[in-house]
Amino acid sequence: MFAWKRQFSIANTLLKTTTTTTARTMTTATPPSFQVFRDVPPLRQLRRTLLLSNRTVGLVPTMGALHEGHLSLIRQAATENTDIIVSIFVNPTQFGVNEDLSSYPRTWDSDVAKLEALNAELSQQNTSPGRITAILAPTSKVMYPTLPPSSEIDGDGSFVTILPLAKKLEGASRPVFFRGVATVCMKLFNIVNAERAYFGQKDVQQTVVIRRMVQDFHVGTEIRIGETVREEDGLAMSSRNVYLGVRRRGVGLVLYEALRAAEGAYLAGKGGREEVLDAARGVAKRVLDEQSWLGPAERALFEVDYISLADPDSLEELKVIDPAKGAILSAALKMAPLEESKPGEDCGLGDGKVPVRLIDNLIFKPRV
Amino acid sequence: MFAWKRQFSIANTLLKTTTTTTARTMTTATPPSFQVFRDVPPLRQLRRTLLLSNRTVGLVPTMGALHEGHLSLIRQAATENTDIIVSIFVNPTQFGVNEDLSSYPRTWDSDVAKLEALNAELSQQNTSPGRITAILAPTSKVMYPTLPPSSEIDGDGSFVTILPLAKKLEGASRPVFFRGVATVCMKLFNIVNAERAYFGQKDVQQTVVIRRMVQDFHVGTEIRIGETVREEDGLAMSSRNVYLGVRRRGVGLVLYEALRAAEGAYLAGKGGREEVLDAARGVAKRVLDEQSWLGPAERALFEVDYISLADPDSLEELKVIDPAKGAILSAALKMAPLEESKPGEDCGLGDGKVPVRLIDNLIFKPRV
Repeated sequence: MFAWKRQFSIANTLLKTTTTTTARTMTTATPPSFQVFRDVPPLRQLRRTLLLSNRTVGLVPTMGALHEGHLSLIRQAATENTDIIVSIFVNPTQFGVNEDLSSYPRTWDSDVAKLEALNAELSQQNTSPGRITAILAPTSKVMYPTLPPSSEIDGDGSFVTILPLAKKLEGASRPVFFRGVATVCMKLFNIVNAERAYFGQKDVQQTVVIRRMVQDFHVGTEIRIGETVREEDGLAMSSRNVYLGVRRRGVGLVLYEALRAAEGAYLAGKGGREEVLDAARGVAKRVLDEQSWLGPAERALFEVDYISLADPDSLEELKVIDPAKGAILSAALKMAPLEESKPGEDCGLGDGKVPVRLIDNLIFKPRV
Repeated sequence: MFAWKRQFSIANTLLKTTTTTTARTMTTATPPSFQVFRDVPPLRQLRRTLLLSNRTVGLVPTMGALHEGHLSLIRQAATENTDIIVSIFVNPTQFGVNEDLSSYPRTWDSDVAKLEALNAELSQQNTSPGRITAILAPTSKVMYPTLPPSSEIDGDGSFVTILPLAKKLEGASRPVFFRGVATVCMKLFNIVNAERAYFGQKDVQQTVVIRRMVQDFHVGTEIRIGETVREEDGLAMSSRNVYLGVRRRGVGLVLYEALRAAEGAYLAGKGGREEVLDAARGVAKRVLDEQSWLGPAERALFEVDYISLADPDSLEELKVIDPAKGAILSAALKMAPLEESKPGEDCGLGDGKVPVRLIDNLIFKPRV
């Protein structure tokens, strides 16, 4: 075991926060192609105007640190809506008290630049009707107006809980996570009142929880899921990947490789839990063994947190895959901090000292 | 102590349920002046039409068993909106496992008749723009589509929790109550997407919880509170009053009388907790003493559950009233079942055997 839950103030000081950055301080050469909203009432007004002019709104909720995964969701939203609202808010209630809220990457200027570039791309292509119309970048006080946002499981506040889904998989090691996610999404859905909201399949449990919330609470927003976007080598894109560095990034590929091995078993006709999961476990064990034989300056160690084969709606663990329903195969692993770095080695943001939790998943489609 | 938490299957069999009653079976002579919706999609379509024609919707959420209190909320809504949607749904998740869900009065036909009469009244008056346009009377499966509605405090489901407000006062003796109320109101707000929603001041903690929920979740519906409607003698109207009967109804007036005594102290310039509350306690003690001296066929016994003097926003108990904020004075008492009835006595629905919990409150306005 390593000190997974340490916080890294170094990263916090390295990174910008959005707190004092507004649209007025943006350093783009041309005027921005979208408005930036820090508060709710003016956004509501825009929304009402759009509604009455029969325009449609797609919401893409993010915590900033935008990468190609986010941009692909926006591209998808642009094909299905006239107006896209991107929210950027690092939501404190989904981080546990010992998690990486303070070190979560905050990259406002580059996020805005990426969205500007994407709007230019959408205009040139002219195949999608949609454009980014607004960024919603609320303060914490706007999102949590009455009580300070609590990260304690028994803390006070106004929360949405989706049980038992929120206790499974990621929820087992992160007990407040999905309460925080559901809560902030309910707020965003109420504020934006979008026709559609877009989430990446990479956070598959999040998609299941949010779909359930929308169904149970009759939220008038359709949930759309975008495929996981991967680096060329297969690593699922994630805002936290910047902490990996070259060595851990290479070894971290084991996650996708293990999932693909299990997928291979399913596609080859296997449907029993153990025969499917053993294929993944075998890959993880082989790579961990290989690393263990190397010296501290060469290796990158990790722990498998879970490998799950679950029902797509209830997320209950399956003994046998129902061919009519398929399954969700998902896994999480914790990349330990590097024990020793080599001179000149690219160890990533935080110098290889930040533990990184990687998650990934594959959907097993029904066979029939 | 008496068997407060017994359920009364007698009442259940006496009363109609809405389950099989639809608009088609209504026995009104003229066609109904409003539509009845059992499911969400057609209501959403109506709502969208209203929105695009610049009409405004007021939602009046009820559990049926309509009385003058509900009707006064609808009259208020009619002055502020063009269209009123009344929801009638006995919400299972706000009843504890040992509370009176099964015996809660269900009076569909008379509810519909009252709403028809009120629409006729509104048309004749012609001073209010609004009319009742729709009743939303959803099934439990529509409101709780994925899991059976749980009344257990640690039960599974999709819930809204508003803490610490939900644990105070009524929440102390009814731990799931405000979770159920907040959850069903969030669903109704999402379904109806009303400009305004109307609640009675009689359930004062409910108004505080719902206002907080709307603020914290940025619900786009304004909450409007209607004054408590009282019988001529002062008893606050409540759907549960039908269980009182003449004798308990008379004694139950002690609740309002006690509150009025404390209000008198406040209006006379007193602001300390004990000097205000002692005025109420004195009344309650006097009446209970008087009853104790009577025989079992004459008396109606009760227990004071709480008398509270609380901050209007946080509901925290006050030692001294802040003259700039005022206070909420509230109380609950439990009317015990009659010990003995007299021949021909009107003991109310359930024959005097149903314990009845009465609540009431007064708002102390700021002095400045």
